[in-house]
Amino acid sequence: MNILEIIEKKKNKENLTYEELDYAFNGYLKQEIPDYQMSALLMAICLNELNEEEIFNLTEIFIKSGEVIDLSKLDGIFIDKHSTGGVGDKTTLVIGPIVAACGLKMPKMSGRGLGLTGGTIDKLESIPGFNVYLTEEEFWQGLKEVGFIDVAQNEKLVPLDKVIYALRDVTGTTESLGLIAVSIMSKKIASGTKNILIDIKYGNGALIKTKEKALEFAEIIKNIGQKYQVKVLPIIDDMNTPLGNNIGNALEVKEAMDILQGKQGKLTDLCLDLSAKLINLACDISYEEAKQKCLDVINNNQAYQKFLDFVKFQKGDITKLKISPYSLEVKANEEGILTEINAHKIALLARSLGCFRQTKDDKIDYSVGIVLNKNIGDYININDTLCTLYISNPNFYLNEKDLECFKIEGGKL
Amino acid sequence: MNILEIIEKKKNKENLTYEELDYAFNGYLKQEIPDYQMSALLMAICLNELNEEEIFNLTEIFIKSGEVIDLSKLDGIFIDKHSTGGVGDKTTLVIGPIVAACGLKMPKMSGRGLGLTGGTIDKLESIPGFNVYLTEEEFWQGLKEVGFIDVAQNEKLVPLDKVIYALRDVTGTTESLGLIAVSIMSKKIASGTKNILIDIKYGNGALIKTKEKALEFAEIIKNIGQKYQVKVLPIIDDMNTPLGNNIGNALEVKEAMDILQGKQGKLTDLCLDLSAKLINLACDISYEEAKQKCLDVINNNQAYQKFLDFVKFQKGDITKLKISPYSLEVKANEEGILTEINAHKIALLARSLGCFRQTKDDKIDYSVGIVLNKNIGDYININDTLCTLYISNPNFYLNEKDLECFKIEGGKL
Repeated sequence: MNILEIIEKKKNKENLTYEELDYAFNGYLKQEIPDYQMSALLMAICLNELNEEEIFNLTEIFIKSGEVIDLSKLDGIFIDKHSTGGVGDKTTLVIGPIVAACGLKMPKMSGRGLGLTGGTIDKLESIPGFNVYLTEEEFWQGLKEVGFIDVAQNEKLVPLDKVIYALRDVTGTTESLGLIAVSIMSKKIASGTKNILIDIKYGNGALIKTKEKALEFAEIIKNIGQKYQVKVLPIIDDMNTPLGNNIGNALEVKEAMDILQGKQGKLTDLCLDLSAKLINLACDISYEEAKQKCLDVINNNQAYQKFLDFVKFQKGDITKLKISPYSLEVKANEEGILTEINAHKIALLARSLGCFRQTKDDKIDYSVGIVLNKNIGDYININDTLCTLYISNPNFYLNEKDLECFKIEGGKL
Repeated sequence: MNILEIIEKKKNKENLTYEELDYAFNGYLKQEIPDYQMSALLMAICLNELNEEEIFNLTEIFIKSGEVIDLSKLDGIFIDKHSTGGVGDKTTLVIGPIVAACGLKMPKMSGRGLGLTGGTIDKLESIPGFNVYLTEEEFWQGLKEVGFIDVAQNEKLVPLDKVIYALRDVTGTTESLGLIAVSIMSKKIASGTKNILIDIKYGNGALIKTKEKALEFAEIIKNIGQKYQVKVLPIIDDMNTPLGNNIGNALEVKEAMDILQGKQGKLTDLCLDLSAKLINLACDISYEEAKQKCLDVINNNQAYQKFLDFVKFQKGDITKLKISPYSLEVKANEEGILTEINAHKIALLARSLGCFRQTKDDKIDYSVGIVLNKNIGDYININDTLCTLYISNPNFYLNEKDLECFKIEGGKL
């Protein structure tokens, strides 16, 4: 077999066999195939896509590259959730504590930032001391004692995904439906949970750009789930507007805490809805009952306490969460109704502040980010603060283009 | 500027500005942008192509990355030729000595193997001692004394092409018309010649697959020439069948020598035609007169002598040219007329013997290759030798698939 022939086949829109996919991807894992050949193949896959059989085969190759967790060792109902990623998406940090407070177990494995979307692991690491690498013993102990843990992928589970994920992130090859499906489903299946909610974000700020693609994606992951006897509930969600008000690692942790302490808004509603759907998927209770339970654990502070237990169990010191002391307000230069907060443009702005990685070895600045001070539908007066930038370089220069994140319409002339 | 945004723009079929192309390509040259990002960009360019303005801009960026030769230092009429590459294409090694024997000067700069086509530099290096890196002094001396020299690209002229060429070769990204045009024309313009024949090969064995694409390519390079006041004569040539009988580095040098010593055939006719066209393009004499001159220098042995002078000047020892002593005959298993010798399949077979590179650091085996023993139109009997493989591994195993290089039709039942 020959890697050039494999790259050329995909470039020419031909389908790859199990053996060819295995040769290319495991060859890359074994470092027999260099970065630059794999990134060319990934770009060809991005532009010419994988068909269903290729996706099934690649999922199997990914799963087989490592170990599979057997959750039957521990009593309890296990659930898992995954979001395909969006700008400002911190739902895991809200849902995990809620469902754990409701008595379920959520052994979550999260990723680092990919493309223009943040990763939950990066967000957690903004909490000083937070350990995303638990030992096997700690893993089981955390599930037993807290009910919610969140760890980085380790080399034992789907090691192939780890190396491919890192390469996609820095080569503009994050947007292939097939590669996204393989990455998510291989990890979920190897994690051992049999009830999985997949929150599919679409829009200009998400990996998946259109509703049509999101529906196609939902079909793909349901079919993969079926092959492995796993219940997959796909939820499709618009992501043209950032999720919540905060974008940036430490800032997003703070917003999750605010919600668990009772802050209201669209993001709170979404987290309650997803939590209830998860409980309904895994347990024998109705969606309405489940939702009431979720509301209860927020109101009686049990969910927030779970969050604190979870952070403490993973050695984080939440009192030391640091948000940059330097801030800069972006003011409106026109009057009217705020009709758009463009998630993609907000993400580009966040990237320019240092929230995301640009090459594999980049360090993230956890303390920087954006707080949106206005919501869609708000009436804006000239000089109102649209958003506040938390920056680490006090000489940061604000660009005219940054105002394009916001669309204000229908003001007085 | 941000390399990920540039990759994503091209992935999304948007056009890149001069500044973006400059940032990406010169960033790669300065090693500020890693291999894996450039190969993703090259694949996106391959699949979504460059428009005319991007091609003009990239050509200029390539030329400006190095020095430009001023040929006016030396008297004489300078010509240059280039072939877009095909299987078994050794025309440079025949045309150079012919035109030099006719009194013109050909300062040729050649490349190494790209994809499934050989490179003239690799062929020359199969001659023991042959030096493809001349000093500036030797360059002018060779042109003055011999009239034909052939050197590898050096770092001073279009250094950008050298690094991009090497990366395209090992990432399946050789087939972009735009990238091919930029690579060829930047080198030709930097080489200083004002009369250039470009031999555009198309077909399954060439970088350019169809006649339509070849015509499009001819238009592109004529337009680039015009921008730089260079006369470009594009010739379009079918390459579905290998050029000549020999494929493989040392074997191709040998075939060029045979032609210069009077061997007849299709390849000889082609070399005479191209030589005459070149002379006609650069000098004030008709094609017919030019062709007669070319025939004369073959018949009176002056062209062959030029070849020997050329090899000697560049320190090669032609008596030591080595072809592997191990050979294997591929026999026909059916009877009929030979209607096809598939250049692409022949190239794959040649690659499996070791004629070409598969990764940037691969070594080529100069001594191996294929000699075609039959030509299209020949009547074939069972057990006739179709081709002879010169191999270096005496345990080489011949594959059933290798017979698919040949199509034999219309035999008795």
